[in-house]
Amino acid sequence: MVCRYGDDLKMMVEQVKQYTSEGKVADYIPALSVADPSKVAVAIYDGNDTCFSEGNFNEKFTLQSISKVLTLALALMDHGEKYVFSKVGMEPTGDPFNSISKLETQIPSKPLNPMINAGALAVSSLIKGSSNEEKLERLLQFVRDLSGNDQISYNKEVAQSEFETADLNRALSYFMKQHGVLTGDVDELLDFYTKQCAIEVNCEDLAKIGFALANQGKHPLQKNDIIPAEIARLVKTFMVTCGMYNASGEFAIRVGIPAKSGVSGGIVGAVPGNIGIGIYGPALDKKGNSVAGMRLLELLSSKYHLSIF
Amino acid sequence: MVCRYGDDLKMMVEQVKQYTSEGKVADYIPALSVADPSKVAVAIYDGNDTCFSEGNFNEKFTLQSISKVLTLALALMDHGEKYVFSKVGMEPTGDPFNSISKLETQIPSKPLNPMINAGALAVSSLIKGSSNEEKLERLLQFVRDLSGNDQISYNKEVAQSEFETADLNRALSYFMKQHGVLTGDVDELLDFYTKQCAIEVNCEDLAKIGFALANQGKHPLQKNDIIPAEIARLVKTFMVTCGMYNASGEFAIRVGIPAKSGVSGGIVGAVPGNIGIGIYGPALDKKGNSVAGMRLLELLSSKYHLSIF
Amino acid sequence: MVCRYGDDLKMMVEQVKQYTSEGKVADYIPALSVADPSKVAVAIYDGNDTCFSEGNFNEKFTLQSISKVLTLALALMDHGEKYVFSKVGMEPTGDPFNSISKLETQIPSKPLNPMINAGALAVSSLIKGSSNEEKLERLLQFVRDLSGNDQISYNKEVAQSEFETADLNRALSYFMKQHGVLTGDVDELLDFYTKQCAIEVNCEDLAKIGFALANQGKHPLQKNDIIPAEIARLVKTFMVTCGMYNASGEFAIRVGIPAKSGVSGGIVGAVPGNIGIGIYGPALDKKGNSVAGMRLLELLSSKYHLSIF
Amino acid sequence: MVCRYGDDLKMMVEQVKQYTSEGKVADYIPALSVADPSKVAVAIYDGNDTCFSEGNFNEKFTLQSISKVLTLALALMDHGEKYVFSKVGMEPTGDPFNSISKLETQIPSKPLNPMINAGALAVSSLIKGSSNEEKLERLLQFVRDLSGNDQISYNKEVAQSEFETADLNRALSYFMKQHGVLTGDVDELLDFYTKQCAIEVNCEDLAKIGFALANQGKHPLQKNDIIPAEIARLVKTFMVTCGMYNASGEFAIRVGIPAKSGVSGGIVGAVPGNIGIGIYGPALDKKGNSVAGMRLLELLSSKYHLSIF
Repeated sequence: MVCRYGDDLKMMVEQVKQYTSEGKVADYIPALSVADPSKVAVAIYDGNDTCFSEGNFNEKFTLQSISKVLTLALALMDHGEKYVFSKVGMEPTGDPFNSISKLETQIPSKPLNPMINAGALAVSSLIKGSSNEEKLERLLQFVRDLSGNDQISYNKEVAQSEFETADLNRALSYFMKQHGVLTGDVDELLDFYTKQCAIEVNCEDLAKIGFALANQGKHPLQKNDIIPAEIARLVKTFMVTCGMYNASGEFAIRVGIPAKSGVSGGIVGAVPGNIGIGIYGPALDKKGNSVAGMRLLELLSSKYHLSIF
Repeated sequence: MVCRYGDDLKMMVEQVKQYTSEGKVADYIPALSVADPSKVAVAIYDGNDTCFSEGNFNEKFTLQSISKVLTLALALMDHGEKYVFSKVGMEPTGDPFNSISKLETQIPSKPLNPMINAGALAVSSLIKGSSNEEKLERLLQFVRDLSGNDQISYNKEVAQSEFETADLNRALSYFMKQHGVLTGDVDELLDFYTKQCAIEVNCEDLAKIGFALANQGKHPLQKNDIIPAEIARLVKTFMVTCGMYNASGEFAIRVGIPAKSGVSGGIVGAVPGNIGIGIYGPALDKKGNSVAGMRLLELLSSKYHLSIF
Repeated sequence: MVCRYGDDLKMMVEQVKQYTSEGKVADYIPALSVADPSKVAVAIYDGNDTCFSEGNFNEKFTLQSISKVLTLALALMDHGEKYVFSKVGMEPTGDPFNSISKLETQIPSKPLNPMINAGALAVSSLIKGSSNEEKLERLLQFVRDLSGNDQISYNKEVAQSEFETADLNRALSYFMKQHGVLTGDVDELLDFYTKQCAIEVNCEDLAKIGFALANQGKHPLQKNDIIPAEIARLVKTFMVTCGMYNASGEFAIRVGIPAKSGVSGGIVGAVPGNIGIGIYGPALDKKGNSVAGMRLLELLSSKYHLSIF
Repeated sequence: MVCRYGDDLKMMVEQVKQYTSEGKVADYIPALSVADPSKVAVAIYDGNDTCFSEGNFNEKFTLQSISKVLTLALALMDHGEKYVFSKVGMEPTGDPFNSISKLETQIPSKPLNPMINAGALAVSSLIKGSSNEEKLERLLQFVRDLSGNDQISYNKEVAQSEFETADLNRALSYFMKQHGVLTGDVDELLDFYTKQCAIEVNCEDLAKIGFALANQGKHPLQKNDIIPAEIARLVKTFMVTCGMYNASGEFAIRVGIPAKSGVSGGIVGAVPGNIGIGIYGPALDKKGNSVAGMRLLELLSSKYHLSIF
């Protein structure tokens, strides 16, 4: 198995490392701005015992927007498609992930999809639980099940840092509350949302999460489905149409792997049927995607014919 | 003096009363929705002892957006033109008063003018005072000086009702905070802003406030200027270019009096040099202006040649 | 083979026929408004001799927006990826297909993708040929090769009708010309564009075109590739991310087949690897897609597991 | 009389000349780009025999957007208020003069006011005449009457140059045609519009035109009204709320004179009741107004208390 990816992965990581200098780490979230932009890591998991990993694969980072696919899956499991999509749309958008204009110009002012911030906030507000502690514990358990890693928790410092600087997300939330898309206390929602974004993983965890999504929601070492197959499929569709911010269209063409990125530099990939990919590379391009990560996925897709198209 | 306006005013009020059925009271602020839509009142003050008043002139109502001209004057007195207009623009906009889109599409995301909500919030954040109590007391004293009415205060119930339903203004505020237009605590700002909107007057108070603005900031019965002449002039300019929401252009053509309306149905008018006008009529048109009040001002302007154009 | 789809198709067409009354034919193009809204047809082609067809499969209709995928393929063959995507973007948009706002608010004002009108106009301007006659002849030959139908031509009456009412497309074109995205004469471009939209097919032709796209650009009865495999793949990616107007996201979830619709009521589907689908049903939903056609594709996708996700 | 302005004017022109280096001439219209940016001229006309003029007052320049106030007056005389304002709105806008977005986002897609390009195009389409020659002759005669200068004509070279590069105005026109705001042939409208913009004057002509607007539409040396008083008033209102592109609000505050500028560097001012002002200074600021002209008007307004506020 090592022979399958081993040397290739090593070479690919070397090859994309040079591009890290073209990007820069997210600086609008104080706790993210201290990341080392030269780091690159990749892990591939195909359901057997171990991941194939290269680079700084032990490096921990926070999920950030990657958490949007997980809360979407959980909200769909909690409430079903019909209810969830009465609160958030299914359409990609050419606008930036944090844009507010469409909420005003579209009637009704439902967020266009669950992968932009407005939509992810609406989705997070749907997670069942009698308190934020309970909601977060449910989400953490979900992530632990998907990754098979019981140690997964969230980074309190990052969560706190984001909570304090989340004014744009507050603006989005209050706007949606005004229009009935959200109900409930906004600061409580923000507390949950920033903690969800601060869940900490390494790229092997991500690869396993990607595998479960790829494998119809099933984990090879567990008996039960973690995500119903239909929901896993639906989530992957969003990863294709709007998983890479407003570079999703180009990514679909160049790479063609259902994937979701976060501004921490992480990317999860779910190649339908058999392969999960976890990436880390905190140097970001202008649209918020890992510079080296995008290149790496392009190499992998091309080498192993992973595109779904 | 009675002969000057007396019979005319009475007749005009009768004439415009019929239009009240074409409008409806603001219903998005619970405390405003209970107003009687058939009410109409007018007061004219020309600097002598008494106002000429007709209709329900004892009826009290809250300033709402009319307060925007008063906080603008006070902020200009507190900080000077240069600083204030580094936080808020001077340009009219074709967008609704509560729109958020321009904050996103314009760079820098400075509100276009102090008469739309975003701009008024930015202006209110500038009022000097070590606490909201002190700021509010300063503003109330300012309104009492302008109106010569020591009894003026704010309506706690209306303020509370608006505070609880001010999600759109919260969205605007957090958006501006994200972009550095606002600093400080948003809920504290909203607390002050909703109290400022809830300051309670009758139309004779408004007529006297209008007179002071018209009379270069001077009150006839007081020795000192209340507003420096230059600031009074500047404020009246905004009343012309953007005082009547996004019907300001048409109002300038049809009426031509510097005026500011509020969703409570009040309108203050300041005919340069000698006349202040106070109007009340809670039945609003679609743009948020008093239906009967607009008609009444058109009649007054036409009859007494009050247009500045 | 008949047994494979025969009875199913018949039943499915019956089943979706009832939904035709929920839609209405495009009325903003005079020549389209005369279509019979109750018509429904489907054809499936898997590379063998004949199509499996049901309903009004002999009915001819014009390609309209379906032509966008064909001119995109041809422009890519004429100029290569790099040049084409210097003129048009790769990102889906939540805006309607005929929207102009993004051209103004995005800098540079490049159309977001080749499936919206602005982008399709930019792509059509790239088709090689010394005259419109030559360009059109090249495009027609391309469509004839893809469908294996030498009789394919365009409907002069429809082209003329669209040319006369194409003021919105003229507005888009002149806007792009102002911003250097387009060069050349706009009316000449419109002449070509409206003729391209008026190319006339039946659903069996569409099924064969879909098959070629699905089959890496190859036609089973022809030796040579008609479209290079890489371009066929690229085109299908756009069909997934933005092929069904601003219902593409929902369609990807519900159906998951690379597809492109037109306001004539046609839809072409390309199931990767082996199946081409042609649909006709002129009763449209509010977003411009065939009401019955959407339902039919959902049934097909569900029954035969055709989703790529 | 010379004593009234003479030395002041000379000094003021000297004073503002230094600012010309901060601006630059319009370069998007080839024929305008050759103007000498260091030129400054002013003329003041108060109804007596001669203008008080300083600087390059014999320099001829084209009206450009200044023509918008003249076609508005003529269209109102041709059709009356009600009809004209069914085609164009009365509200100022914060958008640039050549913006198209609002036509899409506002329903109905009526241009916001007659001072932005879309609105001016709609207004020009209303000028009565059986041919463009007749329309233009009527407009030229109107300008000759207003300025008392029989020699006024249009600059063919400038008109031709603008016609060839008017793609944005074509886009606006076709967009409005699609939405029924405009009817008729767009190129014919553009032919008239670019000729209207190319009408050539010097700043003394402008001062006299400004005087007529200021003087209720009357010319002192002519018996008849040229513009009905009510229409002159209405036009001046637009000059205040939207005469200086999207710097109109600031101009109202700083200067307070009804005025209209053009990208040629001309500005006409109409001080209600008695003074007309003509300005020329082709070095423009970023919003399209004459840098030196704006300063000069500020000095004049301040020195002679010309503000209407």
